[in-house]
Order: sequence, then C-alpha cells, then structure tokens
Amino acid sequence: MNAAPRHTLADLAQRFALELRGDGAKTIDGVGALATAGATQLGFLANPHYRSQLAASKAGAVILRADDAPHWPGTSLVAADPYVAFARVAALFERTPAAAPGIHPSAVVAPGARVAASASVGPLCAIDAGAIIEDGAVLGPHCIIGPDCIVGAQTRCVARVTLVTRVTLGKRVLVHPGAVIGADGFGLAFDRGHWVKVPQLGGVRVGDDCEIGANTTIDRGALEDTLLEEDVRLDNQIQIAHNVRIGAHTAMAGCSAVAGSARIGRYCLIGGGAGILGHLTIADRVTITARCLVTRSIDHAGEYSSGVPFQPAREWRRNAARFKHLDDLTRRVQALEKDPKP
Amino acid sequence: MNAAPRHTLADLAQRFALELRGDGAKTIDGVGALATAGATQLGFLANPHYRSQLAASKAGAVILRADDAPHWPGTSLVAADPYVAFARVAALFERTPAAAPGIHPSAVVAPGARVAASASVGPLCAIDAGAIIEDGAVLGPHCIIGPDCIVGAQTRCVARVTLVTRVTLGKRVLVHPGAVIGADGFGLAFDRGHWVKVPQLGGVRVGDDCEIGANTTIDRGALEDTLLEEDVRLDNQIQIAHNVRIGAHTAMAGCSAVAGSARIGRYCLIGGGAGILGHLTIADRVTITARCLVTRSIDHAGEYSSGVPFQPAREWRRNAARFKHLDDLTRRVQALEKDPKP
Amino acid sequence: MNAAPRHTLADLAQRFALELRGDGAKTIDGVGALATAGATQLGFLANPHYRSQLAASKAGAVILRADDAPHWPGTSLVAADPYVAFARVAALFERTPAAAPGIHPSAVVAPGARVAASASVGPLCAIDAGAIIEDGAVLGPHCIIGPDCIVGAQTRCVARVTLVTRVTLGKRVLVHPGAVIGADGFGLAFDRGHWVKVPQLGGVRVGDDCEIGANTTIDRGALEDTLLEEDVRLDNQIQIAHNVRIGAHTAMAGCSAVAGSARIGRYCLIGGGAGILGHLTIADRVTITARCLVTRSIDHAGEYSSGVPFQPAREWRRNAARFKHLDDLTRRVQALEKDPKP
Repeated sequence: MNAAPRHTLADLAQRFALELRGDGAKTIDGVGALATAGATQLGFLANPHYRSQLAASKAGAVILRADDAPHWPGTSLVAADPYVAFARVAALFERTPAAAPGIHPSAVVAPGARVAASASVGPLCAIDAGAIIEDGAVLGPHCIIGPDCIVGAQTRCVARVTLVTRVTLGKRVLVHPGAVIGADGFGLAFDRGHWVKVPQLGGVRVGDDCEIGANTTIDRGALEDTLLEEDVRLDNQIQIAHNVRIGAHTAMAGCSAVAGSARIGRYCLIGGGAGILGHLTIADRVTITARCLVTRSIDHAGEYSSGVPFQPAREWRRNAARFKHLDDLTRRVQALEKDPKP
Repeated sequence: MNAAPRHTLADLAQRFALELRGDGAKTIDGVGALATAGATQLGFLANPHYRSQLAASKAGAVILRADDAPHWPGTSLVAADPYVAFARVAALFERTPAAAPGIHPSAVVAPGARVAASASVGPLCAIDAGAIIEDGAVLGPHCIIGPDCIVGAQTRCVARVTLVTRVTLGKRVLVHPGAVIGADGFGLAFDRGHWVKVPQLGGVRVGDDCEIGANTTIDRGALEDTLLEEDVRLDNQIQIAHNVRIGAHTAMAGCSAVAGSARIGRYCLIGGGAGILGHLTIADRVTITARCLVTRSIDHAGEYSSGVPFQPAREWRRNAARFKHLDDLTRRVQALEKDPKP
Repeated sequence: MNAAPRHTLADLAQRFALELRGDGAKTIDGVGALATAGATQLGFLANPHYRSQLAASKAGAVILRADDAPHWPGTSLVAADPYVAFARVAALFERTPAAAPGIHPSAVVAPGARVAASASVGPLCAIDAGAIIEDGAVLGPHCIIGPDCIVGAQTRCVARVTLVTRVTLGKRVLVHPGAVIGADGFGLAFDRGHWVKVPQLGGVRVGDDCEIGANTTIDRGALEDTLLEEDVRLDNQIQIAHNVRIGAHTAMAGCSAVAGSARIGRYCLIGGGAGILGHLTIADRVTITARCLVTRSIDHAGEYSSGVPFQPAREWRRNAARFKHLDDLTRRVQALEKDPKP
C-alpha cells in the first residue's frame, strides 16, 4: 500500500464545489465519523438530529449544512447535501487494489476471446472463447466469463464473479464476489410423473452503473432476456428470477427476491428480505418495507408493508393462536352488531 | 458458436409424436413466445386463456392443444400438453458449450482421483485424490470435487460447483454455479459458556435427474446422510440442512429452506422463500405457498399457507398494531357474547 | 483415506473424564445414532425422552446420563452432558483431509504476501501481496485472500473462501465454502436522480473460534469495522451488513440476516431466517425464533417471536383477508362495549 493520500480543504472545496469556511490550507488524510475522526480527518453531519455530536468531535474539519455550520467552531465545508458530498470526498481515500492492464499468466483465456489491451484479467480467471472484455474492465481473481458474455468498459468484477452464458454487463458496473449471473432460470414442465426441463434460451442484460452484491443470483431468461436498467443497485444474496425486469435507479436491500417475469418500476426501494411474486407489475417510486411479500401488482407509488410485529414469545403465542380464528371472530362481532343479546 | 440448428416441422412432429397440421416442409430455426416469435420460429400456446394472442402472432408455426387449433390459420403441431412438447422442442435449440472429453491442462487432479476417459474436466478444477468422475460427466470451470465424492454418469456441474466431502451425485444431475454440497451441518453443543462443534460424519446423496440451483447449499449429515431422491428440483439460494430427506419429484422455489432432519415427501411443491422447521415430516403431494413457515408436521396432501397480506403502509401499521392485542380482543368479544351490557 | 481409527472405551473414558461402566477393553471404531449404531460403534442418549430407544439399540456402548444408565445393560460411558461428551468423542472419528504444510504449486501467491512455513495453501488459491497467513492456518482449494487480510493461526478456510479486503480472522476460525467476507457494505447516497456510492473504508474483524457457514456474507464497514467477537457461530447463507457487531458466543441459524450497524449481544440465539433491522441494539441472552423480524431494540433477555401460524390455505385465506380490517374490527368491538345496542 502506498501512503495515504492527502488533500487540502481548499482543494476539496474547489474539486467538489463546496463552500469553505475556515482554514483552507489545512490538510486532510482521511475521513471518519464525527465521534471518532481525528485532527487530520474530515467528519460529516448529514442529519441535524445528531448536531449535538459536533461539540465533542475532534475532527479536523466537518462537512455540514449551512444551517448546522454555526454550531461548529472549526473549519468546515458547507454542502447542500452533506452525505453526498461526504461520499464523493471519501472516494479519494478508498484504496482499491491496483489493477494493471493485461492478463495474469495464471488466467485461462480461450483462443477467440477478445480482451481489450487496457483491461485487467486477474489470477485464475477463466474466459470462454466467445467472451468480450471491453476497455478498462477489471476482472479480479477467479472470475468466470462464459460463452457469449460481454463485460463493458470500466466495469469491475471484484473477484469470483460468474457470468454463465449470454450475459451483457454495461459500463461502470460493479459486481461483488460470489455473484452468479446468467444461470438457468427455474423452468419445469410436468409430464407423467416426472419433471421436464424447459430450456432457458434467453440471457441477462445489466445496464450501465449497476451494482450487484455478493452471492446475488440473476438467472437468464427463458425466451427473452432478464433485464436490469441503468443504475440499479442490488445488495447481497438477492435472487432475481428469469425474465424479471428492474427499472432504472431502483435499489434492493439484502436477501430480497423477485420471482419470474415480474416487472419492477424505476426509483423503487425494496427492503431487506422483501419478496415479489411472479408476473406482477410494480409501478415507479414504490417503496416495499423489509420482509414484505408482494402478492399482487402495485399501480401507485407509495409505501407498502406486510407482517406482524414481534413480541415477547409468550404474548406472541397467545395472539398468533387467535389469528387462526380471525374470520370466526369477525363473524361473531357481526352477529353481536346485529343482535347484541343473542 | 455454430450456426443455429434447423428442423422441418415434419421432423419435429415425428420426433416428438405430435400431430402435424399444415406444411411439414417448413423449416424452423428457433423458438419464441407467441408475441415475439418470427416467421422461422415456433411459438406455443399452453394456456387457453391467452388464445387471443394467436391472432397477432407472426410465428412460423405454433404448438397448441387440439381445442385451440381451429383458432390458428397457420401450420401447427398439436400436443396433449403443449408446454411439455415445447420444452422438448426447445431443447434442440439450446446451445450448451461443447465439453470435449478430457482434463483441461489447468485443472489440478490429485493422483488417485479416478476420472472416466469420456468425462470432461474444465479449466481450473480441483479434484481430490479420493474423488470419482464417471462416464460422460462434465465439470465446467472452477469446480471443486473433494474427498470421497462421486460425480455420476452424464452429470453436469456447470461451473464453480463445490462438493466438499462424502457427496454422491447420481446420474444426469445438473448443478449450477456457486452451489455448495456437503459442507458441515450446523451442529453445536453448549459446554460451560462455549460452543463445542459436533462433528458432521455423514455425507450427501443426490439421486438421478436432480437439479440444484445457483448458490444453493446442502449440508452433509451429522451421523447419516442428507438425502435427495431422484428428480428433486431445487432453485437458487436454497438451504438444505443436515440429515434432511427430500422425496422424489419434489420441487422447491428460490430462497426456501429446510432445517435439520426434516423429511419432505414426494411430489411436494415448496414455494419461494418458504421454510420448514427441523425434525418435521411432510406428507407426499403437499404444496407450501411462498414464504409460508411450516412449524408442525403435515400429515395430509393439500395446500398450506401463512403470513398476512401486504397493504399500503399506513393501513398496515394500524392493523399490525392491533395484532399485538388480538388475544385481548378475542376475550372482549367473548365477554360481550356472555353479557353484552357490562 | 487411512483405516478408521480405533479406541478402547477405557481410553475414551480417561481422555474425556467420563465414568466407564462395563468392559473397558472393548474397541470402538466409530459413532452412530442409537437406532443405527453397530456393535463396534458408540451411540449416545442425550434426551431422556428417547430412553426407550435403548432397548432396541445394537450399539457397542452408549454415552448417557447417570439417571439413564440403569436402562442400558451393556457397556456405557456416563457423562454429565452426553451430547457434549459425544461431540468430543466423535471428533476422533472425523477424518478431515490432510493439509500438508506448504504452498500448492498451482496457487498464486503474490510477492510480498507472508505465509507461515507451517501453513497450508491449497490448489488454485490466490493470495494478494498484502496478505498474512499465520502458523498452522489451512486454506483449502480456491481460496482468495485479498489485500490487508490476515488469516490467524490454526484457522481453516475449507475451500473457495473469499476474504475481499481488510479482513482479520482470529485463531481457530472455521470458514465454509462460498463465504464472502469483506465485500463492500451497501452504502448509497441519492443525488439528483442517481445513486452515488459511499466508499466502504472499514474492514471486518472475526474473533477466535468463530465458525462461518457456506455462502454466508459479511460486509466490511463504512468507516469502522464490522465485528464478530469470539466463538460466534454462523450457519449457511447468513447476511451480515456493514458495521454490525455480534457479541461473543452468539449463534445464528441459516438464512438469518442483520442490517447495517445493528449490535447483537453475547449468548444470543437467532433462529433460521430471522431478521434484525439496522441500527438496533439487542441485549445479551436474547433468543429470536425462526423467521422473526426484529424492528426495535431489545433491552431484556428473553424469547421473541413474530409471524402467524400456517394453516390449510383455504382457512388461511379467510383469516388473512380479515387481517386487513383488524383495526376496524377492534373499533367495532370498542363501539359495542360502549353501547351494545347501537
């Protein structure tokens, strides 16, 4: 590792179009939380709710909103959205492993594969004859790029990513280890007591600027392609079944799942562990809370939930047992309403 | 890739015992959905509900039921079950990567491993001394075959499959990337404030014609084997704990899970995200709907569900809060029934 | 594989401080369940509920409690906790693959990586320049050890384990195949219609004696580290988000998940498929039952649950439909209580 990068606050203010208040010559060599940032680190205050943390912070400088600035006596960078500004500044301090152009000698690249001279192919990758790796793409160790797969320019497969077949990743896509993209969709027909496999002849298309989490799976389509539009963000261990379509800028949290042929709109937020059944259509700007199971199409933007609250187990058991008779209870109340003195 | 295969309709009719109506000399070079299939492609109509799509279809021919045939003016193949027939025909057009017999020079095969001459071992596989790869089996890139593991004849591990130890795959099994079969079951004993690991001395046996999805995990047994009978079909990201037994022809959808020592019958259908607790017994021909948690044994065939419906979050919150008092509400209704004028 | 190890009962009694009753010269070559153990195998009875199985058992000897000993006519080893004693004895019969010290010639170890002479690096591992592998550590085939990662002494990565970056595993940790530790946490800021990635600058620290299941994912922290204290036990397909902290001796069953920055206490038991939302704090010795979703912090030890019981689908549908009107039903009961004759 090289030495940590260093930046003056004046430089950061100019680079990210922030307003500097205080000593622009001060040098920053890292970022941190308000509570733990040191004298050469930059902290941030995104939520005014935590404004009281400013008093105790030892940060060398703070990114904050203009409204919060009077509460910080030190040097600050004022931003309309401190969290976004912090994300941009912090990126200067992320040290991703160097990825020199070229193919590591231990990688197995089949004759016929096209790998751009500016691309980097890491140790022990396996690239099929029919694959294309475009300019500046980076494959970390142990990636598998199967037949008819394209890795777009500047896209990075961190390590151990599997593109099975007929997968196209757009530009600047980021894929984390263990992700499997383009495996067979789960298609079965039932014939006289046995399952018959339905061939999965489609592929997967992933738009520009998408992110795909660790151990997430995206199956290829049966006849047409499974599709992620641009800037879709998937966390870890998500399951996307065949022929699903996900609209641009939608983000899904860990362990959520979408069944076959469902269509999800743009700018949706899908909570952790949420599920969407097959063949449904979800409108744009729909929020699904954690663990909600969506069983019908949603036509309107808004927030949707299911489930029951957790409780101490003894109390929960009593309530849960009553749920099995909720229809009966409702009928009994109806009877009382009709004739309160039976 | 070679050119797409081509088949005359007369040939398809004969090969799959379908009734040809129309021009048997017509040539087909692919399959597609009714709405998108072109003049040289074969479409299908499995569900009479979509019969109206026939009018607009540009498909070169259609597989359909005799009842639907009068609604299609073009050439058709009449089948008792068009979806099954379509699955069989479509398989002719699936182009799986060629797998030449032999061991790729980058694979690491320990001395003592037995690999059939007709088997194919792909790039960067690692095969332990005690492993056996039978006739015609195909290991794609990056497979790990551990000690005392057997890969049956014609079985295909697509890529990056891990058989940890004491795993036997039957014949014609299909395993997708990221699957881990034969890892330690989760066995712990608690001793004076610390966990003691319970050794997992069993294995895993997978029957003929099973399919195992991407990133699915099947643990090996504690004392005896975890067992999948023949023709069990598992989708992606399924978790099968140690000593589970799954009956023949059962299919499980993505993200479902079965806890230790549960026994599932034959011809069951387990929905996406469903869960089955440990040590339960599930009868044959049981259907579990998506996300249902099965907490007791099921003795009778039938369909079972749990959960509550999703709603707009504001409405849901009001109802969910009341759930915490459902036992109390029931008692209050009982009181009203006894004495409506308290 | 070598021949199975053999031990006399006298030897086992002495080694594990158990009380021998009967023939100490008898030789044992394996362990088994009471119902299936043979004449040279050792069975165990941990739960007095199954005492009746003693009568039919053909086991060569049995580990049991003093209270149960009179019900077994053969040789026995008497233990205060038979399950713990069985776990220790069974470990003698677990034959883990030999791991000779040294680096397999197919592994790719970057110059600069430090690998202890007593460590074992298996086939096709990829070790980054900044990694450290300590004394007696074992990496099975296909492990990836990324930059700034440390594998502690005697730790074993079974196969195909990925340590992405800034991951420290303590001593005697056991990690199963497909686990991904140290991938980016899921941090996003929203800026004028697009997502901006929030760099994940922290790492992951895993304490001594932890176990991490197959295909489990543990993300690295945003600014500080994700942390597992010692003796934490994670089953398969668990998702641990960035900046989570898990207290010592906590065990989590398969498919459970913890969202970002949650803190879980010591000696907790988290059931299969349970979920814990972000930024919550869970006290020590809390038990969460299977599939429970924890939506608020828990201050007291105890057992907590959520969900509704499963039922035959027809009955369930009627009750579930009523849930959507539970708030209204409660208000109607309130009205009846106020004025039973409206």
